[in-house]
Amino acid sequence: MSETNAAEVISVGTELLLGEILNTNAQFLAQELAQLGIPHYYQTVVGDNVLRLQKAVAIGCERSRCLIFTGGLGPTPDDLTTAALADFFQTPLIEHPEILADIEAKFARRGRIMSPSNRKQALLPQGAEILPNPTGSAPGMIWQPRPGLTILTFPGVPSEMQVMWRETAVPYLRQQGWGQGVIYSRTLRFWGIGESNLAEKVVTQLRSTNPTVAPYAGKGEVRLRISAQAPTEAEAIALIEPMQQEIVSLTGTDYYGMDHDSLASVVGTLLKQARQTVAVAESCTGGGLGAYLTHVSGSSAYFRGGVISYDNQVKVDLLGVREIDLAEQGAVSDPVSQQMAAGVRERLKADWGLSITGIAGPDGGTDTKPVGLVYLGIAAPNGQVESFCYQFGARDREFIRWLSLCTVLDLLRRKLLAAND
Amino acid sequence: MSETNAAEVISVGTELLLGEILNTNAQFLAQELAQLGIPHYYQTVVGDNVLRLQKAVAIGCERSRCLIFTGGLGPTPDDLTTAALADFFQTPLIEHPEILADIEAKFARRGRIMSPSNRKQALLPQGAEILPNPTGSAPGMIWQPRPGLTILTFPGVPSEMQVMWRETAVPYLRQQGWGQGVIYSRTLRFWGIGESNLAEKVVTQLRSTNPTVAPYAGKGEVRLRISAQAPTEAEAIALIEPMQQEIVSLTGTDYYGMDHDSLASVVGTLLKQARQTVAVAESCTGGGLGAYLTHVSGSSAYFRGGVISYDNQVKVDLLGVREIDLAEQGAVSDPVSQQMAAGVRERLKADWGLSITGIAGPDGGTDTKPVGLVYLGIAAPNGQVESFCYQFGARDREFIRWLSLCTVLDLLRRKLLAAND
Repeated sequence: MSETNAAEVISVGTELLLGEILNTNAQFLAQELAQLGIPHYYQTVVGDNVLRLQKAVAIGCERSRCLIFTGGLGPTPDDLTTAALADFFQTPLIEHPEILADIEAKFARRGRIMSPSNRKQALLPQGAEILPNPTGSAPGMIWQPRPGLTILTFPGVPSEMQVMWRETAVPYLRQQGWGQGVIYSRTLRFWGIGESNLAEKVVTQLRSTNPTVAPYAGKGEVRLRISAQAPTEAEAIALIEPMQQEIVSLTGTDYYGMDHDSLASVVGTLLKQARQTVAVAESCTGGGLGAYLTHVSGSSAYFRGGVISYDNQVKVDLLGVREIDLAEQGAVSDPVSQQMAAGVRERLKADWGLSITGIAGPDGGTDTKPVGLVYLGIAAPNGQVESFCYQFGARDREFIRWLSLCTVLDLLRRKLLAAND
Repeated sequence: MSETNAAEVISVGTELLLGEILNTNAQFLAQELAQLGIPHYYQTVVGDNVLRLQKAVAIGCERSRCLIFTGGLGPTPDDLTTAALADFFQTPLIEHPEILADIEAKFARRGRIMSPSNRKQALLPQGAEILPNPTGSAPGMIWQPRPGLTILTFPGVPSEMQVMWRETAVPYLRQQGWGQGVIYSRTLRFWGIGESNLAEKVVTQLRSTNPTVAPYAGKGEVRLRISAQAPTEAEAIALIEPMQQEIVSLTGTDYYGMDHDSLASVVGTLLKQARQTVAVAESCTGGGLGAYLTHVSGSSAYFRGGVISYDNQVKVDLLGVREIDLAEQGAVSDPVSQQMAAGVRERLKADWGLSITGIAGPDGGTDTKPVGLVYLGIAAPNGQVESFCYQFGARDREFIRWLSLCTVLDLLRRKLLAAND
């Protein structure tokens, strides 16, 4: 019944079912399993309850050959993973004096005395090996309760779990023949094209089996993930690279970067290559564009600064926007966005000036200027000024602000690319 | 077999099994189910694979009476949640012209043409109702494929899912008699006090059983969550409020707000009450303080704007910082932070001026000015200017920036509170 060599992550903790904490352990283990090339088809979250935990174990044994547990190893009564597993496989618990001594020593080093409740952390099912926990009190275990089934347990504290995983579990799994190959992925990032339009351009590539290509959308951008399975990382990369080149050439300038690239980092690289600088004039984004650009370490090489002209008087006083245009056209208009971009470029002595003025909502919209209406301005090194009008729709305020600042960066990116041609 | 009225969250997406994204949707739904008082014992994550998804459905039907799916509603071939569910329950898919028209209209508003692949998003199993998606293209569904089993589907994009959950799913579930009792929580937020110090001040309250009080720390602040279980929300609130008052009086001005309050929104409320305005001068935060203040809708009532003086020349030209102080003391110094605060207050005609100048790293630190050193300036309505030096340590760049802007807002908050006394 079980799929060959699949591992399953079972996270134990009522705090997860109450949404009190995010399940970052499951994400960490998922990434690690992918890197090791260990197939991983299911994750389960279950509370601190013996019967439900045992039901999850019964299901896991049917479909996976390695069950990886996080949580429920602490000293309190609601920590019951070890006992529930021993009971499920009808195996007695044995006290390990070496665990007890280790916990006592750890308490002593912090000038504290071990409490009686910690004693239960020294119990493991007969036949299980200790999975040492160098940084916390509770060790985990490595156990084969029956042939062809491996159980690993970890505490729920992410830092402890990660050290135990890397120092003991990974070498153990490799030695047992798990994860001969690797799954390696790269994510290509696109701006200015929708998911369905992108999918149509790469319809052939989406059918590929190794590497696979899968589209994702979120935060206004579309991504294509290329994943290859191969004996080594180098061989996986060799499968990915021709596919990446194929996709990049099919999609042109809608492709902007990969993996940890952002529009801010890509624009920064292009500005450095061109030895040019940029300054920003922001109204509805309130400084978000500057914050995004300076999220990139080293951005002082090309970012001069900006003016947050939230109030109209600031637009006039600090950017030289004409009062008559504010009065007649309104702050959210072509002439004002152009004067903001030109003004900030000139007054901050930058090569490029960018501006954003719009209605981020939820209030402040009118029939002619609804929520989501944004004007983006761009002043070029030769003094030419343009503006572009976008209608992002009545979305969440923060999302409209995010789309605005990404879109104006994308405009600059395309201009910088065109100048390179 | 199924536990009475339990709901189960089934998250669909290979990107989750590869660890590419964190399952924030499961946390959101867990919190919401807890608030509604709907029991929730299991969560499952499964990839974009019809057979495994159907196996997860089979297991879910056995143990839960409401299955809540996120993910797999997009237009691409690996989006298969709807089709897999229809197939599992042997129900034909029906095309809904009203969904198609809605998707077409949404594309048109963005000046784009719907692609043929979006057509599949208009298919729902016979008998299923549309769960409208106001902000994205793919709707979800509400379906009772057999008596006593409810299925809800949502797209994986968190912002879309959350709107759909709140606007349609919650009223539907309430109307169907789900969630008889409630668990109601309030989160109290603190700035300027550590978790252990706070815990010592409220040691008695932490022992309470209904409501419970639990401390959490993260993003530089400490929170206390007060949770009460009761037949109705009103009764739960009646349990919470005396506890809240007790804690607030024990903790004084370190308590700054509750639930969705932020330092930015609390400062905004105090400024509005005082009929005062603020302007910001930002160096290492690059606009982040302005962006945070204007995250609050209606902030134009008290936020005038700011200057992002990333380059030193901008500090001189736009804020009047003295070149000799920049040369002799450096940009990260008391006099520069004071001149930035005074300059932005004066030139933007605000009552208060705030400034931030520091070394956010990871590069740029020296022995005398290490990464994490930040000067915060504050210019008051009476013209008095102060600066404060913080050493946040060699942390992550984004965290140093975040601590900087929260700390300067907290300084202003305490000054506004003191002025009220």
